[in-house]
Amino acid sequence: MAVNRRWLLASRPPGEFDESAFKLEEAPVPSPKDGEVLVHNIWLSLDPYMRGRMRDVKSYVPPVQLGAVMEGGTVGEVIESKNPAFKKGDIVEERLGWQEYGIGTGKGMRKIDPGLAPISTALGVLGMPGLTAYFGLLDVGAMKAGDTVVVSAATGAVGGPVGQIARIKGAKRVVGIAGGKAKCDYAVKELGYDACIDYQAMGRDTGQLIKALRAACPDGIDVYFDNVGSWITDAVLPLVNFKARIAICGMIAEYNLEKPELAPRITRHLLVNSARMEGFIILNFRQRFGEGLREMSGWVKSGQLKYREDVVDGLENAPRALLRLFKGENFGKQLVRIRPDPTRR
Amino acid sequence: MAVNRRWLLASRPPGEFDESAFKLEEAPVPSPKDGEVLVHNIWLSLDPYMRGRMRDVKSYVPPVQLGAVMEGGTVGEVIESKNPAFKKGDIVEERLGWQEYGIGTGKGMRKIDPGLAPISTALGVLGMPGLTAYFGLLDVGAMKAGDTVVVSAATGAVGGPVGQIARIKGAKRVVGIAGGKAKCDYAVKELGYDACIDYQAMGRDTGQLIKALRAACPDGIDVYFDNVGSWITDAVLPLVNFKARIAICGMIAEYNLEKPELAPRITRHLLVNSARMEGFIILNFRQRFGEGLREMSGWVKSGQLKYREDVVDGLENAPRALLRLFKGENFGKQLVRIRPDPTRR
Repeated sequence: MAVNRRWLLASRPPGEFDESAFKLEEAPVPSPKDGEVLVHNIWLSLDPYMRGRMRDVKSYVPPVQLGAVMEGGTVGEVIESKNPAFKKGDIVEERLGWQEYGIGTGKGMRKIDPGLAPISTALGVLGMPGLTAYFGLLDVGAMKAGDTVVVSAATGAVGGPVGQIARIKGAKRVVGIAGGKAKCDYAVKELGYDACIDYQAMGRDTGQLIKALRAACPDGIDVYFDNVGSWITDAVLPLVNFKARIAICGMIAEYNLEKPELAPRITRHLLVNSARMEGFIILNFRQRFGEGLREMSGWVKSGQLKYREDVVDGLENAPRALLRLFKGENFGKQLVRIRPDPTRR
Repeated sequence: MAVNRRWLLASRPPGEFDESAFKLEEAPVPSPKDGEVLVHNIWLSLDPYMRGRMRDVKSYVPPVQLGAVMEGGTVGEVIESKNPAFKKGDIVEERLGWQEYGIGTGKGMRKIDPGLAPISTALGVLGMPGLTAYFGLLDVGAMKAGDTVVVSAATGAVGGPVGQIARIKGAKRVVGIAGGKAKCDYAVKELGYDACIDYQAMGRDTGQLIKALRAACPDGIDVYFDNVGSWITDAVLPLVNFKARIAICGMIAEYNLEKPELAPRITRHLLVNSARMEGFIILNFRQRFGEGLREMSGWVKSGQLKYREDVVDGLENAPRALLRLFKGENFGKQLVRIRPDPTRR
């Protein structure tokens, strides 16, 4: 009988983590019950939020239990269906985790049309990261034409779409912050950022980053889309304009901290500028996913919205791929190709 | 000829300040030109924002210049008018500063009806502090019935009305934070707070305050109205609920700092709770002052909205009165009675 390889959470590292936090095991391929669907996964998405699921602390969802399969978004092919809404051969997006096979109940499972775009985009620009960019910028960030928009992790799975949507929606100026010359060049030449600041050479010197941001944003900052947190965010806050909006989407620079860093308080910048800072998660917008996907799909088809994938082959490499994210080594949406994609030839 | 005593800003202390930051001088009483009005001041308002006006840093309004009359809200009597909209004997509210006589242009000057309430309330519950409470709680804080509301500086000129408006508007639970047993007793017995936490005995121990807040707010915190900042705010943030709103009105505990304090970053609490933190100043709502004053006046008349004034006599004591605010010694709205109030017998 076929074997299901899967990654379990093996420990809860308090700070920096390595592959030993996970354990690869082999289990029998499960059988679907009435109403269920057996999916053979093709693509696994790796995302910064996963670090939070490895911790046993209050967050917006419960943590992964020790010994349980690591959570994650997947795209795969239905190989057996006991649910009339899905049939063998359907390509579906679900959250089946770090494993080769998974059982879906159909609820929350989304059929993907391979004719529209590569099916892996259902985990990226036409999936959670893309929707996060869309609602985070336009709704939480309340971006309007004429704004100066700053985006951290500017070429990432979320940041990349944010910069381009800001452009499409008439921002006056779109400025990225990213790590390394290659990403910054890509942000400006391919994604249409007006400028991109390479933070990597700055050695966490907030003053130096403030200077670079001031030069790049001569009219101040109206919207800050934050994927990074920590000293990057410290540098943005002093430059926000009256009624600025700061959308807190993620803080990858803080997820590995054992204790919160100490930093100058930022509330003064909110007070003197009547500015707003708001955290969000994409599930808050689940009633509006269709609206977002329609507009985003149109932009992808017309070529206005570009995306980039960073593919690691083989489920056995999933922990390594997650580590890439936390080292900033990924360039574009981090994916694991669990097996060859049958829809791409 | 009559003499106009007035307080000038004499220096810009970087941190803690004392009376030497100000200089009392005598000048001739000015004469109104066409369109202007000469006002003999009766009441002077002292407010935390004045500390910011003593600094030469970017804020929402320019600083007071060295050698210029200190800014401040006043209520006085028109003694000479060259503006048809005002006549001798009118009681008016204006921002004429720390002085006995001032010239108004009529613009921004508000006639006060002594029959409605004591005229000093035009600087308190029926003036800027009251409006700040009203719009800050209901608009920025978006308070709704059933919320748990926490207010710092709970018995102050702003905090006092905030707690009572929360009660009137159907908050499930209203919890104050104030300094000393007398203020906390007053908050619960007179203002209708469900509980009030005395921070003074806690020696800036955030953990102790978190514990007290957790006990006082068993269902978490939906709205935090912040007048204080610093370690008080650090203790509130870990307890906010999903979609909580934090209205940043002031941070009196930080205004005397020469350098920003270092503190654990708070953005994580916003992210995991999809919570919002927003700074504001009351001038953002100037188009809606009438609406606020109408509702607030009704509550004052019906006795639902109580207020308390802390009166210091004599313009010569204005610096001392401002210092009282920063030591938390005031109990209620801090006022200076420049001369006997002719409308009170």
